[in-house]
Amino acid sequence: MPRGNFFEDFHVGQRFQHPLPRTVTDADASLYVVLTGARNPVASSAPLAASLGHPSRPLDDLLVFNMAFGKTVADISLNAIANLGYADVRFLAPVYDGDTLAATSIVIGLRETSGGDSGVVYVRSEAVNQNGQPVLTWIRWVLVRKRNAGPGDGIDVRPDLPSFVPADRLTVSSGTVDRETLNRATGSESCWEDYAPGQRLDHAAGMTVEEADHMSATRLYQNDARVHFDGLMMRDTRHGRRLVYGGHVISLCRALTNDGLENILAILAINGGTHVAPTFAGDTLYSVTQVIDAMTVLDRQDVGVLRLRLIGLRDMPPSDFDWDGDAATLRSHPNVVLDLDYNVLLPRR
Amino acid sequence: MPRGNFFEDFHVGQRFQHPLPRTVTDADASLYVVLTGARNPVASSAPLAASLGHPSRPLDDLLVFNMAFGKTVADISLNAIANLGYADVRFLAPVYDGDTLAATSIVIGLRETSGGDSGVVYVRSEAVNQNGQPVLTWIRWVLVRKRNAGPGDGIDVRPDLPSFVPADRLTVSSGTVDRETLNRATGSESCWEDYAPGQRLDHAAGMTVEEADHMSATRLYQNDARVHFDGLMMRDTRHGRRLVYGGHVISLCRALTNDGLENILAILAINGGTHVAPTFAGDTLYSVTQVIDAMTVLDRQDVGVLRLRLIGLRDMPPSDFDWDGDAATLRSHPNVVLDLDYNVLLPRR
Amino acid sequence: MPRGNFFEDFHVGQRFQHPLPRTVTDADASLYVVLTGARNPVASSAPLAASLGHPSRPLDDLLVFNMAFGKTVADISLNAIANLGYADVRFLAPVYDGDTLAATSIVIGLRETSGGDSGVVYVRSEAVNQNGQPVLTWIRWVLVRKRNAGPGDGIDVRPDLPSFVPADRLTVSSGTVDRETLNRATGSESCWEDYAPGQRLDHAAGMTVEEADHMSATRLYQNDARVHFDGLMMRDTRHGRRLVYGGHVISLCRALTNDGLENILAILAINGGTHVAPTFAGDTLYSVTQVIDAMTVLDRQDVGVLRLRLIGLRDMPPSDFDWDGDAATLRSHPNVVLDLDYNVLLPRR
Repeated sequence: MPRGNFFEDFHVGQRFQHPLPRTVTDADASLYVVLTGARNPVASSAPLAASLGHPSRPLDDLLVFNMAFGKTVADISLNAIANLGYADVRFLAPVYDGDTLAATSIVIGLRETSGGDSGVVYVRSEAVNQNGQPVLTWIRWVLVRKRNAGPGDGIDVRPDLPSFVPADRLTVSSGTVDRETLNRATGSESCWEDYAPGQRLDHAAGMTVEEADHMSATRLYQNDARVHFDGLMMRDTRHGRRLVYGGHVISLCRALTNDGLENILAILAINGGTHVAPTFAGDTLYSVTQVIDAMTVLDRQDVGVLRLRLIGLRDMPPSDFDWDGDAATLRSHPNVVLDLDYNVLLPRR
Repeated sequence: MPRGNFFEDFHVGQRFQHPLPRTVTDADASLYVVLTGARNPVASSAPLAASLGHPSRPLDDLLVFNMAFGKTVADISLNAIANLGYADVRFLAPVYDGDTLAATSIVIGLRETSGGDSGVVYVRSEAVNQNGQPVLTWIRWVLVRKRNAGPGDGIDVRPDLPSFVPADRLTVSSGTVDRETLNRATGSESCWEDYAPGQRLDHAAGMTVEEADHMSATRLYQNDARVHFDGLMMRDTRHGRRLVYGGHVISLCRALTNDGLENILAILAINGGTHVAPTFAGDTLYSVTQVIDAMTVLDRQDVGVLRLRLIGLRDMPPSDFDWDGDAATLRSHPNVVLDLDYNVLLPRR
Repeated sequence: MPRGNFFEDFHVGQRFQHPLPRTVTDADASLYVVLTGARNPVASSAPLAASLGHPSRPLDDLLVFNMAFGKTVADISLNAIANLGYADVRFLAPVYDGDTLAATSIVIGLRETSGGDSGVVYVRSEAVNQNGQPVLTWIRWVLVRKRNAGPGDGIDVRPDLPSFVPADRLTVSSGTVDRETLNRATGSESCWEDYAPGQRLDHAAGMTVEEADHMSATRLYQNDARVHFDGLMMRDTRHGRRLVYGGHVISLCRALTNDGLENILAILAINGGTHVAPTFAGDTLYSVTQVIDAMTVLDRQDVGVLRLRLIGLRDMPPSDFDWDGDAATLRSHPNVVLDLDYNVLLPRR
């Protein structure tokens, strides 16, 4: 029997309690560093985390995102043809060593495609900790195979998809920032005021992806979609080989931006994102950041928010990336693999 | 000087206190997930473990098996030609974060082979925690090289090898199962009554093995047999390359059976097992389960035992595995790498 | 803008507070075992560590070395052409689960090279824990590119470089050794008196290096030098591929010496070291130890110190390593990758 759900198996309002609750620990934090090269300062240093009011080091936001996302795969996207997009991804509370994460989803939209062999499934998902406190909420939509090809009932229910998360819906979990402590930890004095909309940052570092690395990371996230693991099955696809899980590409590309964005305290939201092209083992990834917008946060003088575009490049260093700055042209660039729109928290001067 | 013991170095009754005590932690649990894809629910979720009466999450049974087994390699099987079999492997107590494992073995049989260049060594091994409490006991027998080829004294002492572990020798460490909590965690309502002797389960998931992954796992188990690590030495063997450690193959194949056996609470015993053929990096592993038997446990209405055959396949998905169900024909099938007979604990309705 | 400092950016007396404080845990200890195969008994067993007076298992000394070293890379050696040497590396205090490591460096020498395109930078670095207690101090010198080639001011300030660490500057952090407990843990009764200057130990074990493994280890150490990660960039260098980080080569070669040096309690110092040739993925490493000297420690009857030469070999087992025992000839041997001079602590009879 084929695994997972097909397009016909979903209905609007359907709710999933996803397997498998996962107790996360400092070990997962170390593994994330080992598999991505992440240098998130608050996740690295217990004294720095304490200076920001955390009881212990919070896990890297994108580790939480990928673990939460991983839980939804078995029910939602095991038979997906493509992950089409994300929207309204909001980080609601930090996750600490010893917390147990679980995830649910509700189907908020369904749209049959004209070809008759698939449809788009829209879900709102939420991850909670052991106390039932929400730590992450997000919408994603995926193109899912039909069990039986052919015209269906022509369902077309599309949810409202906010194009970005407004500032008043962002949750800031960090306490007051002591900039001296932060700057000493990161070796950087850069802060919110140092970035301006339209600015482009070219991050020099590159990371070559290995099969063992991306499979280990995807197992860390407990995402068991076969396309990432089964080399024999993938040999007969148009790609001819295993695909790197897109969420891991986000993690790798974000880690590569450390140089120039050292003082990011947290990711607050992902406004949207597209996996423009697949990534494979052997590819070398690079990142370019474009500053989209800068916002303040109500009642906080010590921190500000930047809305950033993270562009992931395959086999092309940023210095060779000739781009007019227009989001639309990213989709047709042969070296772009990722276009992610996200909000980060930075200290203010 | 050659390392390790040769056939002539063993005598019946000889006892080994194996190096190296190992304090195991949640980190080893996370690493096991990362290197195998294991989805054992009780090892994953602290609240679920607590609901079963555990003080904290127990380590995956096969991680304990491989760590315990790894300790015996330096003394017993460094000069082994082949691992011939396992018998009477019983899991006696859970292992938790912070426990320290040590292992001993006693030689219980010796049999010179007719060729005169090797012999079979039978050992009963035991792993204990820091309080001296046994957590695992097992028999294995290995074909070991002689230091000096030629006819010896023709020793032939063969121990009793139970063909399976009877139900009254199984140790159930889980407290009473709350099925609702379990089902919510695993996303499955399957229980002991849903499986019947003779039934075959085809698990769709496949996992391609990488050199980095199997070597990392084998280092996690602290098994330092050279055949798994020394690519230069192995180039001159008939295999031409490194071998994947058989215990890791068991772990990978077991992890692949999650889909269809989600509610397994623990492995109670391994009745026997054969590594039918070697596994190499680049192979894609798949698993088929055959239900051999179903048993109840004294004084427990909430759980039952299944005796399962785990068949590991190389480069052949279960849907292509044409098999008459007869154990004997497994040995000559070109794609079978593992034939393992083991007992698991499941909730009852 | 090019990252990191160039030769012109350094001046004698300049001080660096390196990013990024790192809280280290048992997870890092497990990852180190998984990525190197280290079998350090005191780092492995909590009861053994307790018997030596440790509050918990200390992290492997070379893990601490590599983590501390990794912190200095961004400021000191991101534009290095070569790591020329180490001196006066002293381990001052154990590092335990939960400690937070930070590192500083001071420039103690600068020497322009005759070619005019680079210069040698000498730094004294120190790692401290969260209480400000020094845990490691070391000198290293690196050949660093100039930002602008051409003759400079001919600076030539060379620090005193001790050729070895004298016994009275070694710090012994282990309490009194109970040899019976130690021997039972390691399976070896070897002690300080069993080794004699001039003695050579051939360690049979070999380890083949994979890209995924050395990159994961280098990320564990948070050393982000591009030469280890960026396969695309390295394709255009004379090596044509990624380099394995030298500190990881030290860790791998040291791990291979376990067989024959089972009872080493700690590394006390590294007197000097040279990376004779680069190591690449696909190489199989082996190790040979030469005993250089034996020393006692003031006020301690239970332990002694050995000064050892660790010779790392690439693609040549020790049994094939024909060497006259003269340190000078190591540098021209085509299979030697590492020549490390270090001091270890062993129990006395």
